[in-house]
Amino acid sequence: MNVDFSDEEKNGLYKAIFSRRDVRSHFTSKPIDDEILTRILNAAHHAPSVGFSQPWNFILIKDYETRKKIKESFEIERKCSSQFVEEPQKSRYLSFKLEGILDSPLNVCVTYDPSRFGPFVIGKSSIPETGIYSVCCAVQNLWLAARTEGIGLGWVSILSNVLLKKILELPDHVIPVAYVCLGHVSEFAPRPDLETAKWLPRLELKDVVFYEKWEKKQNSSWNNIHELIKANLDYA
Amino acid sequence: MNVDFSDEEKNGLYKAIFSRRDVRSHFTSKPIDDEILTRILNAAHHAPSVGFSQPWNFILIKDYETRKKIKESFEIERKCSSQFVEEPQKSRYLSFKLEGILDSPLNVCVTYDPSRFGPFVIGKSSIPETGIYSVCCAVQNLWLAARTEGIGLGWVSILSNVLLKKILELPDHVIPVAYVCLGHVSEFAPRPDLETAKWLPRLELKDVVFYEKWEKKQNSSWNNIHELIKANLDYA
Repeated sequence: MNVDFSDEEKNGLYKAIFSRRDVRSHFTSKPIDDEILTRILNAAHHAPSVGFSQPWNFILIKDYETRKKIKESFEIERKCSSQFVEEPQKSRYLSFKLEGILDSPLNVCVTYDPSRFGPFVIGKSSIPETGIYSVCCAVQNLWLAARTEGIGLGWVSILSNVLLKKILELPDHVIPVAYVCLGHVSEFAPRPDLETAKWLPRLELKDVVFYEKWEKKQNSSWNNIHELIKANLDYA
Repeated sequence: MNVDFSDEEKNGLYKAIFSRRDVRSHFTSKPIDDEILTRILNAAHHAPSVGFSQPWNFILIKDYETRKKIKESFEIERKCSSQFVEEPQKSRYLSFKLEGILDSPLNVCVTYDPSRFGPFVIGKSSIPETGIYSVCCAVQNLWLAARTEGIGLGWVSILSNVLLKKILELPDHVIPVAYVCLGHVSEFAPRPDLETAKWLPRLELKDVVFYEKWEKKQNSSWNNIHELIKANLDYA
């Protein structure tokens, strides 16, 4: 499969990456077409996985009672976590809209099954966490595919995984990795909500790139790329 | 940014997802253009992150001595892990080519800094692991962007993170998440190597999708999508 990419195809990938947003509002009531949903789930299923173990499951959730219980868990956790931040940031934090559990037409829980194709999985013995890392790659595929289909996705991480496991009847050994809300949206924000709200700034690329060792900023053999990285534009 | 995607742009994303491979061989000596490298690093930097914390760093590695030490760690770990698998699978495991540390022109270590913008990060209090999950999303962006640029990427997880931290001089609190090898390739394999070798099969999408709760296969309100998922083609 020595597929080369046309400029427009390549642009499609970068556009998905730069215009993807963590969506918490602007969900519309338009249902997600089943063919579109199948495509984005299949994109998630084609993520890389350690030793080709494909250790993910996708639980599709529409049931109102289930979602209401999960929303209650969000409310409790949000309140709990607010004790870790001082005023005036605390009030700002509590004013943000941080989930679309009941506003979106579909919720999906993406889980990790450490027993999949085990006990021996190639590449998992030295760093067992690579199993869960594979599931995260699947979430990112899901997110990007949803974006190209005009579907917004929001990852809700203010939740109790203990409650989530109980509500969704997960076996003890299965770990919930991501709880995401999906739906058509009236708009995708031009920038991340927390950047627009000036909660945190976008870091510059040059601040997160090192050369050869931790915190090494450059040396003669890296000068050219260092200049390019310094000049790198923020694509929002 | 209410960007709609043309069919070709959308196809570009799916093509990247379905033709992405974990590359361990077929690296060529052609160096990676600095502008291309900047683009794919910028794609990684635009991953989602919990509370917009952007907790990643990218250490670019070309130094031969560094890579040789890391290759030695791979050899030790590969031998260690082979004790967990019985013959005849053990010999097959040891015969696979599983890394391109010295064959590829560039190695990148992607790390997680739990202290970034902390201690309070929105969305990280209930499930602190979401910090490391963000870094995995960045790795997947890097991988897909590399694929569209014709650059192969292989994730080496048969390594000692203790040694890696020492070799790259990471501070105690920083966690190496991914060690990847990048380079132009003579070809991208049509399917994952471990699928071609019949080590493990690709699961069908229907086997990893549940409805409403764990292991619930369907009910009347999910019949339509269930049929589509069952009929879903393997895109390889």
